Amino acid sequence: MNYRLRSIYPVLKQARLDALLVCQPANISYLTQSQSRDSYLLISQKENIYFTDSRYTEEAKIFLKNNARLKECNGSVFKHIAESILRLRLKNVGIEGRYLPFAEFTKIKEYSKGKFNLIPTHSIIEDKRQIKDTQEIEKLRKAAQITASALEYIRQFLVPGIKEIEVVAELERFIRYQGARASSFDIIVASGPNSSQPHHLSGERKLRKNEPVLIDFGVDYQGYKSDLTRVLFLGKLNILERKVYDIVLKAQEKAIKRITPGAEMAEIDRVARGYIAKKGYAKYFTHNLGHGFGLEIHESPRISGNEASALKPGMTFTIEPGIYLPGKFGIRIEDMILVTRKGCEVLSGLINK
Amino acid sequence: MNYRLRSIYPVLKQARLDALLVCQPANISYLTQSQSRDSYLLISQKENIYFTDSRYTEEAKIFLKNNARLKECNGSVFKHIAESILRLRLKNVGIEGRYLPFAEFTKIKEYSKGKFNLIPTHSIIEDKRQIKDTQEIEKLRKAAQITASALEYIRQFLVPGIKEIEVVAELERFIRYQGARASSFDIIVASGPNSSQPHHLSGERKLRKNEPVLIDFGVDYQGYKSDLTRVLFLGKLNILERKVYDIVLKAQEKAIKRITPGAEMAEIDRVARGYIAKKGYAKYFTHNLGHGFGLEIHESPRISGNEASALKPGMTFTIEPGIYLPGKFGIRIEDMILVTRKGCEVLSGLINK
Repeated sequence: MNYRLRSIYPVLKQARLDALLVCQPANISYLTQSQSRDSYLLISQKENIYFTDSRYTEEAKIFLKNNARLKECNGSVFKHIAESILRLRLKNVGIEGRYLPFAEFTKIKEYSKGKFNLIPTHSIIEDKRQIKDTQEIEKLRKAAQITASALEYIRQFLVPGIKEIEVVAELERFIRYQGARASSFDIIVASGPNSSQPHHLSGERKLRKNEPVLIDFGVDYQGYKSDLTRVLFLGKLNILERKVYDIVLKAQEKAIKRITPGAEMAEIDRVARGYIAKKGYAKYFTHNLGHGFGLEIHESPRISGNEASALKPGMTFTIEPGIYLPGKFGIRIEDMILVTRKGCEVLSGLINK
Repeated sequence: MNYRLRSIYPVLKQARLDALLVCQPANISYLTQSQSRDSYLLISQKENIYFTDSRYTEEAKIFLKNNARLKECNGSVFKHIAESILRLRLKNVGIEGRYLPFAEFTKIKEYSKGKFNLIPTHSIIEDKRQIKDTQEIEKLRKAAQITASALEYIRQFLVPGIKEIEVVAELERFIRYQGARASSFDIIVASGPNSSQPHHLSGERKLRKNEPVLIDFGVDYQGYKSDLTRVLFLGKLNILERKVYDIVLKAQEKAIKRITPGAEMAEIDRVARGYIAKKGYAKYFTHNLGHGFGLEIHESPRISGNEASALKPGMTFTIEPGIYLPGKFGIRIEDMILVTRKGCEVLSGLINK
């Protein structure tokens, strides 16, 4: 059995759970080291069981090896799950409350005939996933490298007259020739005033001369996600744009410098936010400083002013300060950080390029 | 208020519900005629309320108009939802059990202080969405046209030596130049023996001479999804491939001919499945004949042997028989069908091209 699965047992024991039913796809992928789809995973000291249907049993046989028994489900998967729990005589079964739909909870409960309890749990697997192992870091580094090379590639297309969605089209094409499976999220290309919306949907607007173009994108490399933002300019920056750009860049530099094992997450956020506030733009920095990334594009930890936790080696998260001036423009600069034993590494290899 | 929202009130009345809390994104998009994200919608005779956070309030103001009041949520959205329900003195509030996570159900329940009930409902909005209106059909037709033109475009790239993922790359690029926002799902390009897996993940395998290439893809046009499958051949088909191809094609033709308002869904499935069985391939046709498509790539109705419901004008679904010979190859031919008053229309304009 792989070490990731083994590491769950002490947590279950401490929480007085006989088993955990995992339903969140990235959590299942993590535990089975696969790109699992449409499945449930029951973890218990007695037996691990992987539930899926006939579409996926061929691939599952390979990655499950001695990690879990494969149960091919015909009909209701919930009935199969309940039957397995009853057969193993498990009493207290944890569920992932944030992910298991109410109706699925109800179905398993019905099939339980009162012989076991379903107990909501919070972030058991997600907490483990915060610390990336060597294999994961290798994939994340490759994802970051593809992203950096795509950013370099796309510069040639940024000419007045091309549509935002056409920039998206060229990125979507390029990354797949570089070995990525897909984008890690809907690529944001936000030109001119569109850049002031942090979550702009790329559309038919054409790039214009002397305007900023915000590009926020990432790739999925063997299940692992990257995330990078740059603002490029077609022509000249005006004085305000230059000023705001420099503030965001400096805020990011200051935050990255402070990253080291043991540092408090909130403190990293404060460094960037404090600098932006000092320059008079506090109310235009409307989101957290960063978020974890890995099997999901947004995962733990959150780099925000409320997070008192300490950074640990192996954590990966973005640092992405931004200033958004409604109706005018927005600047966000985002890099992918890996916490190392002595400090940190910028995974893309682009340091504020 | 738009007619889609108005059409929900009689259903609530019949189900003795004072309100319905909608959380499924496509359902909210349908009711608000928007590309809504990260939101909840409470529908009641007293007031409709749309809950979202500050990232989306600008765009929400525009599409909500007189359909629903906008509530910008800071902190827990569930607290806001419960407070609104309490303020409106609603007693029996329907929830979408298949989509609301157990933890969110629990939170709203806690905030209810026992003053209202949460009652699981099933498919209230999904049932309405089965019948497409004129505006929806127009978008679906456009999505289908882009898909058909992409299929034509991609033929030139299908030469021995190109990788499956590179075919994906070219499709992902082309559809965006044609006005699509994105693919409607991960494009399947399955070459040679890979085509025998109905849900193959496109990868690094290179196309070879005299092999089938199964391409299953679709686009998102203004929120509406398309879905099309063809098997193309690089060179010559062998005798078995030709035989199986012809069986699948004939099965599809027979099923499409039978589509007319009032026909039973199971009957359509039976026509295709019966023909494939007669030819001796019953056990290699391992999935349903078709599925609805619209705001989601898979939605109601399901065209399967268990569905006794009758077809109605305005329904849109795929017809996609397939025969999969493990380790050898697979053939699936899929088209998008619109049920009309007198029969049906093949939306792509490609009839078994």
